[in-house]
Amino acid sequence: MFKQLGRCQLRRTSTVLSLLLVWTVMATSCKEESSPATRFGLVIHGGAGTITKEKMTEEMEAAYREALTGALILGHQTLAKGGSAVKTVELVIRRLEDSPLFNAAKGAVFTSTGTNELDASIMDGKTLNAGAVAAVKHIKNPITAARLVMEESPHVLLIGDGAEEFAREHDVEFVAPEYFYTDRRWKSYVKRKEKEVKRAAASTDEETGREVDGDEKYGTVGVAALDGSGNLAAGTSTGGTTFKRFGRVGDSPIIGAGTYADNRTCAVSGTGTGEYFIRFAIAHHISALMAYEGKSVQEACDIVIHEKLTGLGGDGGVIAIDWQGNIAFSFNTDGMYRGHVKGDGVAVVKIYGD
Amino acid sequence: MFKQLGRCQLRRTSTVLSLLLVWTVMATSCKEESSPATRFGLVIHGGAGTITKEKMTEEMEAAYREALTGALILGHQTLAKGGSAVKTVELVIRRLEDSPLFNAAKGAVFTSTGTNELDASIMDGKTLNAGAVAAVKHIKNPITAARLVMEESPHVLLIGDGAEEFAREHDVEFVAPEYFYTDRRWKSYVKRKEKEVKRAAASTDEETGREVDGDEKYGTVGVAALDGSGNLAAGTSTGGTTFKRFGRVGDSPIIGAGTYADNRTCAVSGTGTGEYFIRFAIAHHISALMAYEGKSVQEACDIVIHEKLTGLGGDGGVIAIDWQGNIAFSFNTDGMYRGHVKGDGVAVVKIYGD
Repeated sequence: MFKQLGRCQLRRTSTVLSLLLVWTVMATSCKEESSPATRFGLVIHGGAGTITKEKMTEEMEAAYREALTGALILGHQTLAKGGSAVKTVELVIRRLEDSPLFNAAKGAVFTSTGTNELDASIMDGKTLNAGAVAAVKHIKNPITAARLVMEESPHVLLIGDGAEEFAREHDVEFVAPEYFYTDRRWKSYVKRKEKEVKRAAASTDEETGREVDGDEKYGTVGVAALDGSGNLAAGTSTGGTTFKRFGRVGDSPIIGAGTYADNRTCAVSGTGTGEYFIRFAIAHHISALMAYEGKSVQEACDIVIHEKLTGLGGDGGVIAIDWQGNIAFSFNTDGMYRGHVKGDGVAVVKIYGD
Repeated sequence: MFKQLGRCQLRRTSTVLSLLLVWTVMATSCKEESSPATRFGLVIHGGAGTITKEKMTEEMEAAYREALTGALILGHQTLAKGGSAVKTVELVIRRLEDSPLFNAAKGAVFTSTGTNELDASIMDGKTLNAGAVAAVKHIKNPITAARLVMEESPHVLLIGDGAEEFAREHDVEFVAPEYFYTDRRWKSYVKRKEKEVKRAAASTDEETGREVDGDEKYGTVGVAALDGSGNLAAGTSTGGTTFKRFGRVGDSPIIGAGTYADNRTCAVSGTGTGEYFIRFAIAHHISALMAYEGKSVQEACDIVIHEKLTGLGGDGGVIAIDWQGNIAFSFNTDGMYRGHVKGDGVAVVKIYGD
């Protein structure tokens, strides 16, 4: 009897304990879900353009998915450990810059003179502080130089040799120009050069730089992040456009055009025909639509991309995350390498226009 | 009798004719006043800073007033003859660039290495097309190079040697670096250099570029214009800040920061701590406040300067003209060289904080 009672009691106690445990886990989980500490997240892009399933090999798609997933996991780990949004943006962009797949740093396209000119920018949504470098040629990770401009100088934008001099003073890693050589980008350059030679022979006086091939047009990388303290940051890094004019600067290092972050609204990074992004102040425009017209982050991105940009004939896309952790993508191209991850750690990667 | 009558008749006829002439002139004038053709106007600045009556000599004040008035008259003549807003902005800025008084082209300040690095931008409010050059060293009128980038290339921003190469291809006037030498700016440079040497000797590691003297901080010039066809344009040209870091780029060549124009809202040019102007996307911000919050051009300028810029510790000012020809100035410094003229041709020039 005692034993039986004992067993019954034990069973009941065990059931109660189990229920209590489930409840506690659920309660903790619910609490965490609604606490700022797990409302963090990040969204990334690896460029937008004529990216279609037909043009993609299985190997290439797998490589892109792996690279984007790896970047998202790194970003999630950084944020989960309490890393700031600025730190996360820098680390994740460094990872993408080190990959030969993207048109940024290691995988940068070649200019019309066969060199690589790199641009990057970063912005801190808490302080509205920002840093950028343009037309640097020997810096392994331009995003790190941009962050140093933001944090270690009173400036926002440093260009060319002046930017490299500053980076050297701050012990940024330098590489020989050959580091930026990849077969794929060089082939694009050679192909484009042949076209230009033919065009010159045909005596057309069309400005070089108008036409580029496939998805190499917009391989720019970008990250926007919200950290556990509610701070936003965004960053962008690029090699520009294939066969771009020596000295041409697109939107990526331009705060307000390719990159913007403001804790009161959102963090944005863009990729596309940089000139249009500058003319519309695309990234700041999205922030302004949220601040002054009460648009959601997705609505603001859609208005700027599908109305403003498309209306004027520009193409490309943006990624954004708002101060509440809502994530938005918008692009008017066939595809955009992109992904996001929130506090739950589920990394979502997409490539095509689905 | 005949003679007397004749004289009387002649006097009466003459009086009637005179009255008719006055009436005709008035009627024409009234008609012109309300027609779009005379709703044109322009507003200019020659920099903002610690400009006070106490620091100014009579000669200097007279020289500034004359230069600003001359620029306004040139602008008025251009617009009255049916010149476009873009053309007017270019011509008036060229005039200011050619003056040794302003920190743009001829009167540019020196960088920390004793060189002159010039930046300029222009934007067409009708097409939202824009052009800019940064860190050019041999172009007599950077604003003309910026206009060529806008009109003769698919790009918006060209920098350094690449920008000069483009300008050379388009027959822009080049000058030797000595052209940009003026005693006044060189003295400022030498004075600043001595300070830096003392600072270095005192082993402070403060970043150079934080501190500059008096009104030489912000001598940037800018013009915003509305033409008789209802088109807006804005432009800005600068030598940057005295003793600026080699490669530092401020807001002047950044579309959205130092310059913006959109026929639906206004045309803006700014002058001040360029880094803050970039971080707030000051010029685009003013346009956005008009577009999305229904602010008047003056309200928008005041919000951006007196709330946003002042709130973050930046200083400077903006000039703007809206699509209806309303003119606005706003600055949080002691003074700003500024002026405006409308269809009536009355040129108004102001310098101090009145």
